[in-house]
Amino acid sequence: MIPADARSRVSQFMQQFQDQICAGLEQLDGGGKFREDSWERPEGGGGRSRVMTEGKVLERGGVNFSEVFGRELPPSIVSQRPEAKGYEFYATGTSMVLHPRNPYVPTVHLNYRYFEAGPVWWFGGGLDLTPYYGFKEDAQHLHQQLKDACDRHNPHYYAVFKPWCDEYFFLKHRQEMRGVGGVFFDYQDGRGKLYRGGLEQEAFRVSEAIGEIPERSWEELFAFVQDCAGTFLPSYVPIVERRQGMAWGDRERQWQLYRRGRYVEFNLVYDRGTIFGLQTNGRTESILMSLPPLVRWEYDYHPEPNTPEAELVEFFIKPQTWA
Amino acid sequence: MIPADARSRVSQFMQQFQDQICAGLEQLDGGGKFREDSWERPEGGGGRSRVMTEGKVLERGGVNFSEVFGRELPPSIVSQRPEAKGYEFYATGTSMVLHPRNPYVPTVHLNYRYFEAGPVWWFGGGLDLTPYYGFKEDAQHLHQQLKDACDRHNPHYYAVFKPWCDEYFFLKHRQEMRGVGGVFFDYQDGRGKLYRGGLEQEAFRVSEAIGEIPERSWEELFAFVQDCAGTFLPSYVPIVERRQGMAWGDRERQWQLYRRGRYVEFNLVYDRGTIFGLQTNGRTESILMSLPPLVRWEYDYHPEPNTPEAELVEFFIKPQTWA
Repeated sequence: MIPADARSRVSQFMQQFQDQICAGLEQLDGGGKFREDSWERPEGGGGRSRVMTEGKVLERGGVNFSEVFGRELPPSIVSQRPEAKGYEFYATGTSMVLHPRNPYVPTVHLNYRYFEAGPVWWFGGGLDLTPYYGFKEDAQHLHQQLKDACDRHNPHYYAVFKPWCDEYFFLKHRQEMRGVGGVFFDYQDGRGKLYRGGLEQEAFRVSEAIGEIPERSWEELFAFVQDCAGTFLPSYVPIVERRQGMAWGDRERQWQLYRRGRYVEFNLVYDRGTIFGLQTNGRTESILMSLPPLVRWEYDYHPEPNTPEAELVEFFIKPQTWA
Repeated sequence: MIPADARSRVSQFMQQFQDQICAGLEQLDGGGKFREDSWERPEGGGGRSRVMTEGKVLERGGVNFSEVFGRELPPSIVSQRPEAKGYEFYATGTSMVLHPRNPYVPTVHLNYRYFEAGPVWWFGGGLDLTPYYGFKEDAQHLHQQLKDACDRHNPHYYAVFKPWCDEYFFLKHRQEMRGVGGVFFDYQDGRGKLYRGGLEQEAFRVSEAIGEIPERSWEELFAFVQDCAGTFLPSYVPIVERRQGMAWGDRERQWQLYRRGRYVEFNLVYDRGTIFGLQTNGRTESILMSLPPLVRWEYDYHPEPNTPEAELVEFFIKPQTWA
């Protein structure tokens, strides 16, 4: 059973979360301000997009809240949740992507979302970090924050949601992870099974059952999502404070622009949120706000061996135990 | 019936076509040279990728020949050609994308391809032009060349393949055409019906039957593809020669980089060749050779009214009668 005011409680939280993130990021940036655009979706619902451009720390940052109603979920989701077929749906969530200027400061993405469609409801989301240069202490700090949040709610969560993140933010055509990961989960409806990859039929690289766990209520899952979302500022702010002062030049900039290409490839080819938004006639500028301001592609480029750039590819963006 | 040496004849042609294009482009560029990488696909087949970087005219140009064998066509194609289900397939083709440096010189793309799978075979391909600044005489010249090639083979071809191109190179999420079009066709197996959008079940914006036409033989279709491919140099070279001398500055460059973002969006979200390549485990660097060297995204950008940039969006990249 879900509470009668489930939608409004989640939607309220998602808006407050957007406010909290934006306030924290303006303070961190110390210069840039978010510009807000409210928008309505012709089929029902709307959102608030906030974008910071040319800040001191952030070359571009976008934080988007949306709440949409629709006739039926797109086929890509119905295939994962057949019980939702034919029902009207409700979806709300907040998502964020930050593209810092300094190549030593990592890009970060988060998204937390809630769906209802007929008899089914679920939470999804997560946070992942994409550095251009790898620092173990940054990856460890972020993962420890997320693990602590997971552990406060369920001893199995981190063990499932961390590899799920590694698997989800994976560019199959490059055979590369997008970054150093974090946590990711989807289709969390409280049922007493927890699979890597969520549902059994999902074709992830690793898709083994973790096993039976006690059922979780809507309230428990909502509390977990709030707690997990709350780790963003304490996870990311210290990393920025450590890296923002590091000097960089053309070499680091070119590498950052090149690696940003992988971000674009992931978002346009694989990202579930992007595809959902484009398929459901979302506001294109808000959906594609996650794309970097400037990007470079170079044919068949490989960094020199024994450089920090090669270390990123060979060590940091492989599955590692960070916490 | 298809000739016994169908595969080798098409494959030979596709390689010679690659040679011819590259020779013509090196002459046109007057500086840059193509670098060649031959590659093999573990599952069968391979290709020759040729890339020019930092030429005088071309900031990047890629011309790719490939010939691949595989166990079964990916679902995206089998759904269009159910008779191919369960059969091994053969595919060969040449594709090209050119990203010129001068923003007054348009980007151009071509792809011609041939498939066999069990009882079915078909040709597909086309050519389309993506200017950053619109010039009627350029669009008219290109379309006239293509129309003449079409008319030499079938009086209905241009009337079908021109709007098919407008429909195929369409960014639904932007509600924009990619450029001024050209021609595009797919699944041409000689059957006596010719549909805009190819097969009846394809969900194009316009998908009306043109009507019955006489059946066309394999030889007739192959001759058409060769003739159509042969129009590339006489179509594009005069356009470059007209535009290459035009002076440009930061404004034109920024607009070019911004519009290149649309090219990336199309290739990664919609392009059938890119998706086929990534799904069939093709060589990623060759598939993504079509991405521009430098790209810019800007949130919610719209050109000033009554500028050449606005004219591109408002007039040139809408369906027009060019020939």
